[in-house]
Amino acid sequence: VNTVRHWFVVCTSSNLGQRPLARRLLDRPLVVFRADDGRPVAALDRCPHRNMPLSEATLVDGGLRCAYHGWTFDLHGRCVRVPALDGRAESRARDLVVYPTQEQDGRVWVWADPDSQPTVAPVCPDPPPGKRIGWLRHQWSVEAGLSETLENILDVPHTAFLHRGWFRGRRPPVPVTALVRRYPDRVEAEYLGEPRPGGLAARLLAPGGGTLSHVDRFLLPSVAQVEYRLGGRGWLLATALLTPETERCTRIYGSLQFRVAVPAWLLKPLLIPIAWVILRQDSRALQLQTRNQQRFGGAHYSSTEVDVLGPEIARLLRSDPRHQASEQLLAERELRLWL
Amino acid sequence: VNTVRHWFVVCTSSNLGQRPLARRLLDRPLVVFRADDGRPVAALDRCPHRNMPLSEATLVDGGLRCAYHGWTFDLHGRCVRVPALDGRAESRARDLVVYPTQEQDGRVWVWADPDSQPTVAPVCPDPPPGKRIGWLRHQWSVEAGLSETLENILDVPHTAFLHRGWFRGRRPPVPVTALVRRYPDRVEAEYLGEPRPGGLAARLLAPGGGTLSHVDRFLLPSVAQVEYRLGGRGWLLATALLTPETERCTRIYGSLQFRVAVPAWLLKPLLIPIAWVILRQDSRALQLQTRNQQRFGGAHYSSTEVDVLGPEIARLLRSDPRHQASEQLLAERELRLWL
Amino acid sequence: VNTVRHWFVVCTSSNLGQRPLARRLLDRPLVVFRADDGRPVAALDRCPHRNMPLSEATLVDGGLRCAYHGWTFDLHGRCVRVPALDGRAESRARDLVVYPTQEQDGRVWVWADPDSQPTVAPVCPDPPPGKRIGWLRHQWSVEAGLSETLENILDVPHTAFLHRGWFRGRRPPVPVTALVRRYPDRVEAEYLGEPRPGGLAARLLAPGGGTLSHVDRFLLPSVAQVEYRLGGRGWLLATALLTPETERCTRIYGSLQFRVAVPAWLLKPLLIPIAWVILRQDSRALQLQTRNQQRFGGAHYSSTEVDVLGPEIARLLRSDPRHQASEQLLAERELRLWL
Repeated sequence: VNTVRHWFVVCTSSNLGQRPLARRLLDRPLVVFRADDGRPVAALDRCPHRNMPLSEATLVDGGLRCAYHGWTFDLHGRCVRVPALDGRAESRARDLVVYPTQEQDGRVWVWADPDSQPTVAPVCPDPPPGKRIGWLRHQWSVEAGLSETLENILDVPHTAFLHRGWFRGRRPPVPVTALVRRYPDRVEAEYLGEPRPGGLAARLLAPGGGTLSHVDRFLLPSVAQVEYRLGGRGWLLATALLTPETERCTRIYGSLQFRVAVPAWLLKPLLIPIAWVILRQDSRALQLQTRNQQRFGGAHYSSTEVDVLGPEIARLLRSDPRHQASEQLLAERELRLWL
Repeated sequence: VNTVRHWFVVCTSSNLGQRPLARRLLDRPLVVFRADDGRPVAALDRCPHRNMPLSEATLVDGGLRCAYHGWTFDLHGRCVRVPALDGRAESRARDLVVYPTQEQDGRVWVWADPDSQPTVAPVCPDPPPGKRIGWLRHQWSVEAGLSETLENILDVPHTAFLHRGWFRGRRPPVPVTALVRRYPDRVEAEYLGEPRPGGLAARLLAPGGGTLSHVDRFLLPSVAQVEYRLGGRGWLLATALLTPETERCTRIYGSLQFRVAVPAWLLKPLLIPIAWVILRQDSRALQLQTRNQQRFGGAHYSSTEVDVLGPEIARLLRSDPRHQASEQLLAERELRLWL
Repeated sequence: VNTVRHWFVVCTSSNLGQRPLARRLLDRPLVVFRADDGRPVAALDRCPHRNMPLSEATLVDGGLRCAYHGWTFDLHGRCVRVPALDGRAESRARDLVVYPTQEQDGRVWVWADPDSQPTVAPVCPDPPPGKRIGWLRHQWSVEAGLSETLENILDVPHTAFLHRGWFRGRRPPVPVTALVRRYPDRVEAEYLGEPRPGGLAARLLAPGGGTLSHVDRFLLPSVAQVEYRLGGRGWLLATALLTPETERCTRIYGSLQFRVAVPAWLLKPLLIPIAWVILRQDSRALQLQTRNQQRFGGAHYSSTEVDVLGPEIARLLRSDPRHQASEQLLAERELRLWL
């Protein structure tokens, strides 16, 4: 409920081609297509006439034409043609339920409430790719709810077990200090003093070793961000824009920006296969978690203080969405964990 | 509810062979088999003993023998043998729930209410195949409710889009007059003055062009009929006897009779592949419509006057089934549409 | 409900190897593993932290380590390690829900109520394999409830139809006397005077013919046992220990012991393929029965007196589980059936 009056990414600009696209947002099926004037249009994926999915329709001059009887809809979702009808096609009862859209920096955003106008801008703390840094983008889906997926992305302790050998878990753990800062619309954890982890991914990013500092950040409604600084020179920013497709399915629009000792053209072919291994491990763990919760009839968690951000994320997702975006620091706490 | 006290086709005569047949009628599983005396028998597909499906049973002398313990049932559904029992097998609690059946003209009809006796005859406005005309019969299932399937068969405007190039949609539309006549137990629409459509099917049936007139007809409980007259010589009668198997699955027993310029032996091999294309297109559209309605939690239609028969069909299906079959014209209206 | 305060087999000793095992018991998912000290441990298959299935965990020194964050549990289900935590791992909220277990004679038993201590011993009337007799063990699952599966194993009349030619059904039936004895916690039927059945299995067991006597026995909570004496020399004892996995799935731990004219080394390769045929036939019949009951919304039985033990089994399963194991004969009746 609280996630409705927000923007979510529904596809990338390049996903919109000659055919309409079927997507889901908060359990509702959407059709997304590009109108004559180039603007992206998002609407409920249902022809008002006989309920055919419009993701099966055809893009023609002037709009989207339903495959069954040829009803045609313009960029405002208005029915502009009922082919056999001897008279005006226009009628409120024949129009689509459309959602406000916005396209920026290669992504198409949808305002999740078709009955209201956007009151804020999309939350996208992902700087456009610059010249001297390497970058990657990728989208994928996981079989898990929004809260569980966010926690998985921003959780540190699991890396030594689920990604053992790839990311952490190769050396004995050492005590690390975490500073947790809470703001009205976000929460972040800064980790200080961790020696470079022993996994393969970490060694690629900082071949010379050194100390790692990093920040994990969650921003309402659904952004997870991880920023690493390795040995003074290396920098890596991973941003995940999440879209709740259904209660149990979340789509992730990920981007990675980095500046490391190894040049980008060399790093990419080494990094991509490792990233795939890690994503597959997370994806499988989330699916197992989701399905086991279904078998037991719901989630039943027992947290400790090293679940640094998970409970904070759940609390923020339940909070009033009419939050004031604000820089005001509400609370800060410090804790020690072994990484 | 209103469809229960009616006859429906459950199979063709040739479907009944050496093995009992599993069918569904109004969400109830039925077993259909031919008794020793040749009469078709229809019963609930469940052995009263341990609920084995009797469609897995064996036809033996004297009846249908359950595969599990050998209980045997005669043409009245009466249990006539409990093999291990030392005494009489007959007992009301061991009998099958049987449905009245009737076989005529190659089809087996079942009265859908096992607790009542038929009060009317099957509605089958399909003349037996004659000598000088071509004919075809075929049965198939679609994933759609009865009302949606009937509307699809009798709807004209979709042909220019869903069957574009095959049936209509090759020339600019022209205005056509439709006369809609409503009777207590049926409704029909007569279309006057349409030039021969440009699709392949139409050109085969009337190679010389000319004017098309045709009548679309729905008769309670579940008959859809389309009659074409092409260029004065050609005549084509398509009859579909529909059986509601479940809420979302309808079986269609179709027949086609025709008298056209082209001889039947030549027309059949040309017509059959085209008919298959058209049936597949309709079948896929109905499936998409049904599944999309499931995703949205139900149907939500917006009709126009060129949905000539759909709303009339829905109204008749909701009407009192104890209708008086009657020739009395209740209402007539005229409308114009572009075909 | 009445089956909760009982022991059930969840696996064999040899099923427990280097990896934890996922099982179900009375609709609850369990993980079963062997602790450091060799004892079998059974617990709800859910990590208390983030609900990962522990059947995906790893066995390490000191316990079972969850694959996600490395929480580790000992043989009492106690959480002994939360890797990243700076402090004690132990806490009631982090412990597993464990079930009492017992291992005997190659099988692992679980007390189905984690909230109580066992008050009785496992019911296992299966003598350990001796020296001079042949024996076989096998486990398999069927898609059927406990009551239906028990009845199938102990029912005689179906053998002449479902297993026609393999076990019975090759000669005309003859009248046989059955004595049914009812005790507080079990029921048995003794069949007297049946000539050796004509099927292949029977001929292997008693090549010389003669008279068969046999006893079918059900013991609460879930043991089915069949004992044959063939022609004075042959003896065969089949014991099935059943485990209700879900409402519609039952696992069977079967054992066969025999002493027949044919030596065991020769009989086994002949008997095993026949046993497979018979098990497949029963398995398919039970599945058809279960699925047909689902289609009809529940079971609806009509029994006769030759359903000798089925109704008795259902009655005992509904009875109070706090039965007194007792030798007291409550009732005896005699009946005649044709086999």
